[in-house]
Amino acid sequence: MFNSMAGFNSFNEILLFPFSGKIQPILATTAEAEAEPAMIVAGVLLSLVVIYIASKAGGEFLNWLGFPPVLGELVGGVVIGISALNLVIFPESGADSSSSLIISILETTAGLNPDAAEATFQVQSEVLEVLAEIGVIILLFEIGLESNIKELMQVGIQSLIVAIVGVTLPFVGGTAGMMLIFHVSAVPAIFAGAALTATSIGITSRVLAEINCLNTQEGQIILGAAVIDDVFGIIILAVVASLAKTGEVDVINAIYLIISASVFLVGAILLGRFFNDIFVFFAGKFKTRGRTVVPALTIALLMAYVGTAIHLEAILGAFAAGLVLDNLDQTEVGRELEELIRPISDVIVPIFFVTVGTKTNLGVLNPAIPTNREGLVIAIFLIVVAILGKVACGFSVFGLGKINRLAVGIGMIPRGEVGLVFASVGSSSGALSPALDVAIILMVILTTFLAPPILRVVFGGEKAEEVPETSG
Amino acid sequence: MFNSMAGFNSFNEILLFPFSGKIQPILATTAEAEAEPAMIVAGVLLSLVVIYIASKAGGEFLNWLGFPPVLGELVGGVVIGISALNLVIFPESGADSSSSLIISILETTAGLNPDAAEATFQVQSEVLEVLAEIGVIILLFEIGLESNIKELMQVGIQSLIVAIVGVTLPFVGGTAGMMLIFHVSAVPAIFAGAALTATSIGITSRVLAEINCLNTQEGQIILGAAVIDDVFGIIILAVVASLAKTGEVDVINAIYLIISASVFLVGAILLGRFFNDIFVFFAGKFKTRGRTVVPALTIALLMAYVGTAIHLEAILGAFAAGLVLDNLDQTEVGRELEELIRPISDVIVPIFFVTVGTKTNLGVLNPAIPTNREGLVIAIFLIVVAILGKVACGFSVFGLGKINRLAVGIGMIPRGEVGLVFASVGSSSGALSPALDVAIILMVILTTFLAPPILRVVFGGEKAEEVPETSG
Repeated sequence: MFNSMAGFNSFNEILLFPFSGKIQPILATTAEAEAEPAMIVAGVLLSLVVIYIASKAGGEFLNWLGFPPVLGELVGGVVIGISALNLVIFPESGADSSSSLIISILETTAGLNPDAAEATFQVQSEVLEVLAEIGVIILLFEIGLESNIKELMQVGIQSLIVAIVGVTLPFVGGTAGMMLIFHVSAVPAIFAGAALTATSIGITSRVLAEINCLNTQEGQIILGAAVIDDVFGIIILAVVASLAKTGEVDVINAIYLIISASVFLVGAILLGRFFNDIFVFFAGKFKTRGRTVVPALTIALLMAYVGTAIHLEAILGAFAAGLVLDNLDQTEVGRELEELIRPISDVIVPIFFVTVGTKTNLGVLNPAIPTNREGLVIAIFLIVVAILGKVACGFSVFGLGKINRLAVGIGMIPRGEVGLVFASVGSSSGALSPALDVAIILMVILTTFLAPPILRVVFGGEKAEEVPETSG
Repeated sequence: MFNSMAGFNSFNEILLFPFSGKIQPILATTAEAEAEPAMIVAGVLLSLVVIYIASKAGGEFLNWLGFPPVLGELVGGVVIGISALNLVIFPESGADSSSSLIISILETTAGLNPDAAEATFQVQSEVLEVLAEIGVIILLFEIGLESNIKELMQVGIQSLIVAIVGVTLPFVGGTAGMMLIFHVSAVPAIFAGAALTATSIGITSRVLAEINCLNTQEGQIILGAAVIDDVFGIIILAVVASLAKTGEVDVINAIYLIISASVFLVGAILLGRFFNDIFVFFAGKFKTRGRTVVPALTIALLMAYVGTAIHLEAILGAFAAGLVLDNLDQTEVGRELEELIRPISDVIVPIFFVTVGTKTNLGVLNPAIPTNREGLVIAIFLIVVAILGKVACGFSVFGLGKINRLAVGIGMIPRGEVGLVFASVGSSSGALSPALDVAIILMVILTTFLAPPILRVVFGGEKAEEVPETSG
């Protein structure tokens, strides 16, 4: 999986093109032929086939090993991406069409004209990027739908404190460490710190259910804190990503951003009744196909647009839309919605996870190359802070007698999909060096791998009970 | 809705750029700034919001009037497109970013840099084109899933004859008329003839169900013939589209294409057992989310790719995949699949229909401009052939006593979504002039509008019974 030459090349190329997050000009040399629409579609179709095979092969394999499937989708992406097979690669890594296996297959099987290869590669990559972005928008919309505001109010002060401590310690520890020990500049250091704050609701709740501990006091505190974490995390992410655009940390701007992100989120929730009424009205009146799912998606995409337009993040808007429409939990249309979003999410979200994997260049951590060693050390540092910070937050639980505080802390460790969202936003903002980007992804992978088995141990080996498999 | 100036401009521009189906070079002038990824995403999000609003507003309104919702999505597209509001427009019509209202909104609300407007417009348009193409792939996959091969074998000789006559008469009449009366060259004439062959299963079966005639002898013959029509139609389409690529009709090439399209379709069906076994095996073994829908979609996209790669059409492959996986009807996983594809189709297919509408430039038929009048006459001619050809095929039913042959013919009239697929493929192949393109779309719209009320009359006003509304 380590392809040191490829890694080395693209590392250099990224150094030469510091704004690699930006899309390169489409026709680098005007002498080249333009891309035929049929070939662009063929390239996207073939890429999607490869992405889906990687997502299912990886997801099912890791699930069979007892790990969260989302890690498998990521690993599947690493296998087909820049680190190994070069099937699905992106120009932002400095790659061109000649290193894309998909383009070679198109030339061999579909008669793609080699002169049009570069243009086809560029446009196809842009389409896949947008599909991945829509994937993460739907992911956050679904996470929003699953987080219930009322329940969030009820989990109480314990979860809130665990969440605050669990966000603050890793954030401060990570950012300070990056700046003081590794002399990284402020914006990437803050990004690394921010990526340490996430907690994956999905992975934690799944493991707790498996070991039959969802309804213990510890389980309830963990879940509540994980949800609050998501809200804090997404505000931090929106602020950090916005800072990354200017490249410098301006305290007044940061405060302004924190306020605007919070106002946006709180405003969306307060306006929730209004959005809900609109949604229920239309979904109830409509008679044609897609009467529930199209209005819901329209609201999600519209709020995602507003999130982008006010220079925060599309995913903040999508998350807010999910929180808002979740008030419908009790209504028939609300239950229907969660069920209908599921298959849509099942086909679009893996594009995001696999894409993150394909862009992860493990080559930049190859220890055989001396300049890479710092990246490895950073990765180890981030992993240590990620684990210690969250374990410590478990001990902030107060006043409850014989509660297993270690278990609470361990339960907060897995970063999962939310951590990947951080890494992806950071990477595409151009703020993270490739080594820091990969270090963050390694941190996400390792925390997510480690938490489930340790959680089983610290909860004292309650007899595992099979959860019904989610279908779809 | 008639915007004669806009229509006139883009008509001229299309004359200047005869290969308007091809994507224009992305950076027309290298002095312009490149597109920022966040702005591309913002443009796509906003376009999708507008597309969904248009699809639901149009679909629900026409459904309320008693017409098929798909027509409403098309009309919604016309309203937001090049004919009227200029919200969602495409460069292939000769439009640039300055006439796109979405781009203006991005500049005003999201701070899009005007220098990057052109590049953003181009990339955003390409992404929407690919989404529309994936939409029509999913549409044909779903139509394939709904067509049952076994039932197709059983509807018998009557349906087969009605289908053959109902394909041959309009095809020959349309093509000959276009060439002899209007002196149109062979490829566009054949395209126009081919577009006349389609029959919409969806619209016909819905109307028959509404007037409670699905299970009459006439209803069964119509449905069987409509399904066989689709199979013929898609083979004809693949052949015609392939001819359009070379621009000339070579008899040997045409025969080769007919054989390869038929072999592909028959081969896919014969290999169906194998595909089915693979699909059922994986869907049965998989435990993670998307275990049914992702393998099915992967097969559909792979076969769509094969369809493109062998220079036929992606939709031929998707249709074949649907036919093949439909064998599962009896299995649990098969029923699950149809249910899960539904919401996915509900969100992606409208992008196709609305996009066809946005590209329909009604301005080219504005009778106030003398050069447009021929297009109007062509539209009227196509509509007459479309109706007479199908009505005549009803009278090819033989040997059955007091059957309502007129009703059979009328039932075959609505072209619906399949006709739109023809128009869209023809338009993007560059073979059709804008006037002919719009004439075909008008023919599709009018036949689809006319059939339901006439069908109610000729079936003798059986008491209409409410069909349960399809949800989703």
